[in-house]
Formats: sequence, structure tokens, C-alpha cells
Amino acid sequence: MVLIVLELVGIAVFAASGALAAVRTRLDVFGVIVLALTTALGGGVIRDVLLGVHPPSSLTKWPYLLVPAVTGLLVFWFHPQVAKLRRAVLLLDAIGLGLFVTGGTSTALALGAPPYTACLIGMTTGIGGGALRDVLLREIPLVLRREIYAVAALLGGLVVAGGSVLGLPEEPVALAGSALVVVVRLLALWRKWNAPLAHGLDA
Amino acid sequence: MVLIVLELVGIAVFAASGALAAVRTRLDVFGVIVLALTTALGGGVIRDVLLGVHPPSSLTKWPYLLVPAVTGLLVFWFHPQVAKLRRAVLLLDAIGLGLFVTGGTSTALALGAPPYTACLIGMTTGIGGGALRDVLLREIPLVLRREIYAVAALLGGLVVAGGSVLGLPEEPVALAGSALVVVVRLLALWRKWNAPLAHGLDA
Amino acid sequence: MVLIVLELVGIAVFAASGALAAVRTRLDVFGVIVLALTTALGGGVIRDVLLGVHPPSSLTKWPYLLVPAVTGLLVFWFHPQVAKLRRAVLLLDAIGLGLFVTGGTSTALALGAPPYTACLIGMTTGIGGGALRDVLLREIPLVLRREIYAVAALLGGLVVAGGSVLGLPEEPVALAGSALVVVVRLLALWRKWNAPLAHGLDA
Repeated sequence: MVLIVLELVGIAVFAASGALAAVRTRLDVFGVIVLALTTALGGGVIRDVLLGVHPPSSLTKWPYLLVPAVTGLLVFWFHPQVAKLRRAVLLLDAIGLGLFVTGGTSTALALGAPPYTACLIGMTTGIGGGALRDVLLREIPLVLRREIYAVAALLGGLVVAGGSVLGLPEEPVALAGSALVVVVRLLALWRKWNAPLAHGLDA
Repeated sequence: MVLIVLELVGIAVFAASGALAAVRTRLDVFGVIVLALTTALGGGVIRDVLLGVHPPSSLTKWPYLLVPAVTGLLVFWFHPQVAKLRRAVLLLDAIGLGLFVTGGTSTALALGAPPYTACLIGMTTGIGGGALRDVLLREIPLVLRREIYAVAALLGGLVVAGGSVLGLPEEPVALAGSALVVVVRLLALWRKWNAPLAHGLDA
Repeated sequence: MVLIVLELVGIAVFAASGALAAVRTRLDVFGVIVLALTTALGGGVIRDVLLGVHPPSSLTKWPYLLVPAVTGLLVFWFHPQVAKLRRAVLLLDAIGLGLFVTGGTSTALALGAPPYTACLIGMTTGIGGGALRDVLLREIPLVLRREIYAVAALLGGLVVAGGSVLGLPEEPVALAGSALVVVVRLLALWRKWNAPLAHGLDA
């Protein structure tokens, strides 16, 4: 129950990030809602398409549709206020990322994927929605550029897959994996960690 | 039979819109044909991937491949003339959108998707090809920006899903849904309806 | 065995092309590795999603993940040197394209797709990874613009599908198809063949 509430919070935050980006790109209200849905549900849809869950589970449960649609509408109206909540949004986004990644990895393991495949699919679940948002808005995906976002996602997947290989109980491992994602993301934001760029490029 | 002919007309018009955009972006003749196929069949392929129809049905029926390929070639040669048929193209595009949306919604319902899922998948069937076209040509998808295109698609899906919930006969409901899409699109074009933008953005 | 080695070489070359493009777009080291994986495996993943192979086979065999990841890391460090190997890279890329296309076409035929569908899916297997790379890096896909890349891919698919229709033995036909792709690509590069652009466009 707590997990479901947290997951819906994560969906709402991902939806808000998609809606904010859409508002800034001057999409109309409906485009904003479509971007909110795509950003919030895109990672899960990609996960289900890769794993053969038809139709994708996030499209068949109405709260998973209602929450991002309403969030998109609220951001459309209150975007200046939402934009000010930067710190809260970054924290909630890290929590959402952690839950998406560990949930995606668990789902992949449950459907018989090998551990390294499950890691990759978990990472894709976490970063896929943001990547879709950026591709639709004609940006190079932020998740590939900014403070070790994808690395944090991969670490969460490794914890869950590792726990599964070692036969550890699933729920605490998922919580630990999510917590690791949150801690790494917050540390990266706080200490302004960035992964290195290649050398020898002109500035 | 009439429906199949209309659907092929819709495919041809979607193919023409993809080919025209590709000609303007200076793709070569083969790129133009690939864009014609992608725009015409992309929505149906996404629908089938979401619903687990393998391989996607539009890739397994040769008229669905021949019509957009030939259309792409014709547009490559006669693009100045096609560009002049703006009104006819907009009308046929609205008809194609209506048929794609109602067909997609019906297919999703027939494969056991709940009504709201079927609506979303129907809308995606209608706007997915155009979104793919714009992403490949590095544009922000027009379907998310222009005169209530996606709203019209959603309304068509709602009619079909609503009719299914109420147990109404399928064919007349699909026709009514398609007609609604066409009417809304033509009204939007005629009256220059646009969905609102968010307030408080710099001009 | 030789085929597997050649396929891994093709994967490494595709990974290198994704990593080089990512380095030039100033992605960080992890973004470079993600792009290497996406470019190398994207075509095969799209093929498996279209054909209903869950999870995609290239995600479930670890050499197919290790080779592009290591390649991405090497390119990250040695990109100036790799960029100088232009001729070798183009040759290996042509070989990779040939193997991807013929392998994709054979897989589709084996899973019951009709010949023309198998051709299309084979072509998509060959050019899908490069298209994903360019979409993620906000470029119009090179495969749709440059020297008859997609045409060469389609020809390879036609040989394999034609051989299957005629009941010819599979392996020699696949080799002949791959060789045709390589020859056409190298001729196109050598003679600077390009498919025609539409007439009547402003220069």
C-alpha cells in the first residue's frame, strides 16, 4: 500500500516534469497532458513492450492514467508555482526514479529475464519516460547528460538483481535499491557530481 | 469493402504527408519512401506492438505496403502539385484520422483492453504515424501543437469505447466516431480553433 | 562460429559509431556507453519487439551486451584514434549492416512472416540502431540521407527472402545477401553514389 502510494507520487512527479517541459515549449493544454502521460508512463510501457506484457499494465489501471493527466492539467495552470518547488521536485523525482528502476527490475526477473537483462530493463523503466519526453520536445535526452542520472538508475537495478541472485528477500532489497538511487542522486545534485566528458574536445 | 477502400485512402494521405515533409527536408528518394511508409503505418505498428499482435498486421498485408510506397514515389515526383491540393489533403487526412482512431479503438477492445485503455490506444493509432514522422525529421510533433488534432482523435476513441460499454452495434458506432473526428477537425480548421496555451509565458 | 564472430564485430562497429557520435555531442562517459549499446542493439531489439520475441534476444546474451559496452568505453578514451580509422570503420560497418539485415530477415521468416514483411523487418534490423542513435542525438537519421544505405539494406533482405521463396539453402543465400550489401555500400562510397533528391527544391 505504501509502495503503491509512493509509486503514484513518482508518476505524478514524472508527469510534472513532462508537463513543465511541454509548457516551456509552448505546447497547448492537450499537448501538455499528452507529454505528462508519456513522461510518467513511457518507461513502464517500454518495459512491458520489451517483456511482452500486452497491453502494457500501466495503460490498464485507471489511477495510473488519472494521476498524470490531472498532474498535467495542474501544471498547465500553476506552472510558475511548480517551477519554484525545485528542491521538492528533485527529491520526489529521485524517489520516483528509485521505485521505477527497482519495480522494473523485479518485474523483469519475475518474467524470467536473466539478472543482467533485468538490470538493463529496470534502468530503461526509470529513464525511458524522460528520454521519450526529451525526444518528443527535440532535446538530447537529459538523462544521458546530467548528474549521473542513468548511473544511479543502473545501481538500483544492480542491487535488486544481485539480491535475487543471492536469494535475499525481495521487498527489503527493493527498498534498499530505491534508497541507493535516492542517495546517489541527492549526493550528485548536492556535490555537483558529473560523469567525465571525453578529453580532447574543443570547448 | 467501402471501409477498406477508405482506410487505404487514409493510408495514402498519411503517406503523402510524410513524403511531402521528407521532400522538404531534402531526403533522397528512398528516404522519402521510408518516411511515407513510417507515417502511414507507424500508428498501426505502435498499436499492434502495444497489443501484442506479432508481426504487426499492417506489415503483413501487401496492399498496406504498396499503397504508401507508391504514394511516396508519386509525391517525390509531383510534390509541387500535391502541395497545391491543401484543402483536399486536409479533408482526406481528417477521414484517415477518423478511421485509424476508430479502427485502433475497436481492435484494442476486441483484444480485451478496458475501454479507457482502448481510447488511448485508438488515439495513439491515429496520431502515432505523424508523431514518428516529426521525430524522424527533428520536429516537435505537430499533432501535439496544432488545431486540436489529438483532441479530435480522443473524441473518436471515446465514441467507440462508449458505444462498446453501452452495447451498441459496432459498425454504426465506428462510423459515428469517424464522422465526429472529421467534423471536429474541419470545424477546428475552418474556425481556426486552437487549444489554449499556458498563461504567463513570454511572447 | 565464424558468423557469430562476424556478428560481434558488426555489433562492435555499430557501437563505435554510436559512441563516436555521442562523444562529439559531449555526452558524459555513461551517456557514451548508453549510445553505444543503443546503436549496436537497437535494430535487433526493434526486430524482436515487432516479432514478439520477449525479452529481446540481444538483451539476454551477455556477450551482446559486453562487447558494445566495452567498445563504448574504448571509444570514450581513444576517440581521436578511432576517428582516424575511417576506411576500416566504413568497411566493417558495411559487413555489420549485411549481417544484421540478413540475420533479421532470416529470423522473421523463421517466425512465419511473409517474405515482403521479412524484407522490411530485415531492413529495419539493419538501419534501426543508427536511426535510434540519430534521433537520440537530435539528428535527422543519416541512414535516410546518405549514400543508398537503406537501399543496400533492402537489397540484402530481398536476396534472403527471394532465396527462401525459391527454396534455396539458407546459409549460402545469407552469405550472398550479406556480400551484396557490402559490395553495394562500398561501391556507393567509392563512386559517391547518392539516391536522387526531388527536383524543384531551392538550393
